Amino acid sequence: MPRRGIRSWFTVRVTTALFTIPLWLDLTAVAVGAIQGAMFAARLTERRIDLLGVALIGVIVGLGGGILRDLLLNQRPAAISDNWYLPVATAAALLGMLLLRVFTKLNGLIIALDAVTIGLFGAIGTSKALAYGVPEVPAVFVGVISAVGGSILRDVALNLPIALMHVGSLYAIAATAGTVLLVVLVSLGVNVVVAAGLCVVVTTLTRLGSVRYGWSLPEQRALGSWRVWRRA
Amino acid sequence: MPRRGIRSWFTVRVTTALFTIPLWLDLTAVAVGAIQGAMFAARLTERRIDLLGVALIGVIVGLGGGILRDLLLNQRPAAISDNWYLPVATAAALLGMLLLRVFTKLNGLIIALDAVTIGLFGAIGTSKALAYGVPEVPAVFVGVISAVGGSILRDVALNLPIALMHVGSLYAIAATAGTVLLVVLVSLGVNVVVAAGLCVVVTTLTRLGSVRYGWSLPEQRALGSWRVWRRA
Amino acid sequence: MPRRGIRSWFTVRVTTALFTIPLWLDLTAVAVGAIQGAMFAARLTERRIDLLGVALIGVIVGLGGGILRDLLLNQRPAAISDNWYLPVATAAALLGMLLLRVFTKLNGLIIALDAVTIGLFGAIGTSKALAYGVPEVPAVFVGVISAVGGSILRDVALNLPIALMHVGSLYAIAATAGTVLLVVLVSLGVNVVVAAGLCVVVTTLTRLGSVRYGWSLPEQRALGSWRVWRRA
Repeated sequence: MPRRGIRSWFTVRVTTALFTIPLWLDLTAVAVGAIQGAMFAARLTERRIDLLGVALIGVIVGLGGGILRDLLLNQRPAAISDNWYLPVATAAALLGMLLLRVFTKLNGLIIALDAVTIGLFGAIGTSKALAYGVPEVPAVFVGVISAVGGSILRDVALNLPIALMHVGSLYAIAATAGTVLLVVLVSLGVNVVVAAGLCVVVTTLTRLGSVRYGWSLPEQRALGSWRVWRRA
Repeated sequence: MPRRGIRSWFTVRVTTALFTIPLWLDLTAVAVGAIQGAMFAARLTERRIDLLGVALIGVIVGLGGGILRDLLLNQRPAAISDNWYLPVATAAALLGMLLLRVFTKLNGLIIALDAVTIGLFGAIGTSKALAYGVPEVPAVFVGVISAVGGSILRDVALNLPIALMHVGSLYAIAATAGTVLLVVLVSLGVNVVVAAGLCVVVTTLTRLGSVRYGWSLPEQRALGSWRVWRRA
Repeated sequence: MPRRGIRSWFTVRVTTALFTIPLWLDLTAVAVGAIQGAMFAARLTERRIDLLGVALIGVIVGLGGGILRDLLLNQRPAAISDNWYLPVATAAALLGMLLLRVFTKLNGLIIALDAVTIGLFGAIGTSKALAYGVPEVPAVFVGVISAVGGSILRDVALNLPIALMHVGSLYAIAATAGTVLLVVLVSLGVNVVVAAGLCVVVTTLTRLGSVRYGWSLPEQRALGSWRVWRRA
């Protein structure tokens, strides 16, 4: 049975290999998320959001995915267990807000960093879930929630339609592709660090490809017509 | 003291009687919820929701109540602990989306199944809460959240007003009636399986009655006038 | 190292001093929150919210902050572990709804009670977090979430923009000021009951000051101009 095999493999490796994820790497992902979140909120000038609100959205985007991940795993959230997460997220959010002009010119860089961040959150979330004994399928789910949870909470907090459910964003698909690859590779016995690295690469490239080449899912309206699905 | 009596009674029976709820029954409830959720989302064609979004809403409706239930009980969600829930919910959501035309003709069947589902989720949620030592009153609350949590999360995700707070839906009332009955019967020493069965029946009939006969709660505007309440 | 010092200090004191918070005090805070929440919802007459919806919003405001606090601490929510919270919150919500006219005349009293409630929730949340070994910075975060969580969930449930992110409300700032003071005082060795008392006073006065004198944070639009920030 492959599942039991993975678990026992993990109990050995994970503590040494996986949860020595460098704190700076995790915090970097949080910071990039927070910068993005604050820039997003700061652009909504017609909303009369105050400074605190903009910072709050930044913090939500930076930390939300990880908090949802840990709630699903029934663990105390990492951001609650360590002094560093909240100040880093807050500082990054304020930075994103203050440097809005500069960063807008660096838009390409931010999109690239953001794509890497989704990959990182997905890889960390799925690996952590596997390490806590979650079966393969929900481990992918936890990874995807880690990757996109921050932006879902952002849209709920801002009372906007949730972006990732609408045509033209491949966030969740990119995270799913990467985390499925991670789980498959780990099942085949590949080292989790290698698998996580490939997960980050696949997620990042999928997301960047969707931005660069306009990849998107078919709109659900198309389903009204049966022809599309006849051969599916 | 009745509460202690229930608890000790539960520690004996529950493990043998309650948590042998057949997985297929739980998954059937999840599937019906997911079909309903996807059909609901698929009808909102003006929203430009993509395929993933429709499937996601289906999964949210199917699994949301159970996840909220387990978060409140401080347990790892069932959907995260087992490989079956997510694929079943996803497949049911896709099915609901693809067969939108067929199912619309079966509208009565879907409403009936949905009413049974609310009853099942409420009965499972309240029984599980009692089994984990939750007192009677919050056990009802956990059951109601199990029953209606999926549709609350659906409305939040779709940025709609929460349906169950508005005039004309007796979802929460139906679930409350059934779960209160369950708790009262268990307090009186009735077997939990029998009590849960009656809970499902009462919830289903209340819900179907509200659809069939247009039962509804008084709108809160009526409260402006004191007369309504003088004798209450 | 101050953090370790606090923790060991807490393990001794907390069980005797902190978690003997009188239940009536906690329930009073819940009740005031629920009254406020129901009055808020009952005013939205154009929404056609039914009785249950108004009561539900009251319960959400009264219990939401505490539930979010306990989810973040990975504990079973207090409201789920005790029979009193839900009936008190529900009764208070119905009271707020029925007595809407009377209470509106007592508006000043309600605002004052509400300010005290934010202070209490913040103090209880931060103390509980410290007692469970949460580091200082996230302990403040947990306290602020306890204080403002109910009103955040209210706005999400009503599909409104989240009030505390917008210009002119110092809810979160007031809670932050009080809980930071609490953590600093506890770090300096002050008794947690005294520190919590001062937290309540500071939070209450900050909130009342913002209502009385119109204190507010600068709107984020101002950030477009660099001059404001040159000396910051």
